[in-house]
Amino acid sequence: MSTWLLPENIADVLPSEARKLEELRRRVLDRFRCYGYELVMPPMLEYLESLLTASGSDLDLRTFKLVDQLSGRSMGLRADITPQVSRIDAHLLNRQGVTRLCYAGSVLQTRPRGMHATREPYQIGAEIYGHAGLEADLEVQQLMLDTLALIGLTDVRLDLCHAGVLGALLAGVPDAQAREYPLFAALAGKDVSLLRELTADLPEATRAALLALPTLYGDAAVLERARATLPSSPAVTRALDELAFLAAQVEGVEVSIDLADLRGYQYHSGVMFSAYIDGVPNAVARGGRYDHIGEIYGRARAATGFSLDLREVGRISPIEARSSAILAPWTHDAAVRERVAALRDAGEVVIQALPGHEHTVDEFDFDRVLVQRDGTWRVESR
Amino acid sequence: MSTWLLPENIADVLPSEARKLEELRRRVLDRFRCYGYELVMPPMLEYLESLLTASGSDLDLRTFKLVDQLSGRSMGLRADITPQVSRIDAHLLNRQGVTRLCYAGSVLQTRPRGMHATREPYQIGAEIYGHAGLEADLEVQQLMLDTLALIGLTDVRLDLCHAGVLGALLAGVPDAQAREYPLFAALAGKDVSLLRELTADLPEATRAALLALPTLYGDAAVLERARATLPSSPAVTRALDELAFLAAQVEGVEVSIDLADLRGYQYHSGVMFSAYIDGVPNAVARGGRYDHIGEIYGRARAATGFSLDLREVGRISPIEARSSAILAPWTHDAAVRERVAALRDAGEVVIQALPGHEHTVDEFDFDRVLVQRDGTWRVESR
Repeated sequence: MSTWLLPENIADVLPSEARKLEELRRRVLDRFRCYGYELVMPPMLEYLESLLTASGSDLDLRTFKLVDQLSGRSMGLRADITPQVSRIDAHLLNRQGVTRLCYAGSVLQTRPRGMHATREPYQIGAEIYGHAGLEADLEVQQLMLDTLALIGLTDVRLDLCHAGVLGALLAGVPDAQAREYPLFAALAGKDVSLLRELTADLPEATRAALLALPTLYGDAAVLERARATLPSSPAVTRALDELAFLAAQVEGVEVSIDLADLRGYQYHSGVMFSAYIDGVPNAVARGGRYDHIGEIYGRARAATGFSLDLREVGRISPIEARSSAILAPWTHDAAVRERVAALRDAGEVVIQALPGHEHTVDEFDFDRVLVQRDGTWRVESR
Repeated sequence: MSTWLLPENIADVLPSEARKLEELRRRVLDRFRCYGYELVMPPMLEYLESLLTASGSDLDLRTFKLVDQLSGRSMGLRADITPQVSRIDAHLLNRQGVTRLCYAGSVLQTRPRGMHATREPYQIGAEIYGHAGLEADLEVQQLMLDTLALIGLTDVRLDLCHAGVLGALLAGVPDAQAREYPLFAALAGKDVSLLRELTADLPEATRAALLALPTLYGDAAVLERARATLPSSPAVTRALDELAFLAAQVEGVEVSIDLADLRGYQYHSGVMFSAYIDGVPNAVARGGRYDHIGEIYGRARAATGFSLDLREVGRISPIEARSSAILAPWTHDAAVRERVAALRDAGEVVIQALPGHEHTVDEFDFDRVLVQRDGTWRVESR
């Protein structure tokens, strides 16, 4: 095999795309900061037990494993940054009050999520810890929509869902915990025949409610249908009330409810939301509440957040990064050197053509040149 | 073991340090761009053969290995980004002319380089491909010094060395290639007794020259001593001439020559340079020429570049990132919402205190508050 071939579903990001991703990355992180989210940078590698917070989820299968030469223990490459951030909140910062954190970085996955999906998404996201009220969910939801607008994605549809409905329906069922994840997966895939199979031995009322979930989607009126269809319980009522509150607060985007849209579920415990745009099959951003994620670090805190894959979003963002530049000659003339340094300090891209290569620079748009006129060096249009 | 413990020599970057690193990262990449260096983002993982360009070097031992489930082949986690960038130059861009590329990202190493060194440096660097002349070395050297000044590191000492001297001294010696790397390591460590051992069976003139190398350090006058001490050959003369040219061009920093300072050598072929500052034992940045690196990708091109570990440099940089912020109340009032959005659009950090948590935000310096006076919302000093 040729040494320059990359593994499947692994790719380089070349200059024009890289410039755009860097531009988007900065805009998003700046926006997070304007909302008060503090940047953290967790490591690429951790002990495996620290990375796998939710047993039974597919995160385990997607995590690359290797052995630490220093300790002999198993380490994993992070496949998701959220558990790392919750570890930081729980143990490193260990604050009593509200903590807003954000992050940006590569994650790696043993298998791609689709034929053309990358195994190295660039995950960027924001999270609030320490506030159980819906205000935190609302802030995160607003930040997600604001972030998408900032990177030029308009006409977003917001899909709301609630991880608590399934838990409420399974309350009192034996083996509820073991059943939960397979049911989530079947609901997320809207796989009704699998759902029939998984619910065959459940009480009839519970079974009917679970089978009804995939039909409960549409505009906010779905919530009324759900109240009529699902068995009434305080937990179900609370979940539907939370969805009603959040749906009513959103401005400027279309909102739909989909009680089975549990894709992306790993550790969620409450309201979940996904942003879709026309022509893109998968959600462009996902978020939700995950109050139990800190448990394995010994300190569960109220938590909600969202994230997106910047590479994915970069492909559909209309934002263009500029590439205009000034071409300057290569010379030891001190006047040129000073002029070039001053232009660069002012933020201009100035490329000094190396001897013999005056006409071969590909990527930049040289709209100006540095030339000598009457003994002084001036920038002129080409 | 506790799930919140990290592996040895692996660490989180917490908010205050992360903000600083992000600020430095942006400044450095912006400076690279002003010089015409285009950003690329190679993957964290590649097939092992692609990552290990220089056989016999310690890069192999430092590279984490794992198996690709999709192909069954061995992959490595990158321990150095430069070979990846030369692969991109050789095969993906495949330009005929000069190509300037830069990058920034984590690299991972099985073993730390020192007791307190991280196993996850954040490598940031710039490289020129396609120009064999010293103008390219000079541009890279100047960019390195400019970058260090930008991040507040003044009083830099520039150390110049040349990888070609050893090759020239070994010309004609049997097994020269096999001897090269151990000799480089002994010279880099200034380990004279090991050097005596490794050179015991060499011709007396060669041996004397090799044993003289560790003594050839000091100001530019060292070059004259070297011309007198080392056996004269066109390759040795050329190497010393190159060093003399570069030493003469540097302005504003102290320059020294050290013909044995080959630390960091993996694939270098020509001039090498390192930047030191007082009180820090290791070089804060390193660079040099590596014209043969593209050979394993089937396209060797003239190449020179430099890199530094942003985490290391971040610890000693005096740059402070600002953290002032405006505290705003949580309310559904549309006037507040609009005011907060406008302040954020103007780049201000505005944090809405979630109900019940008005007094608990740690990290930000709230120098202003958003308050209502006579029916309008105003930003006031605290």
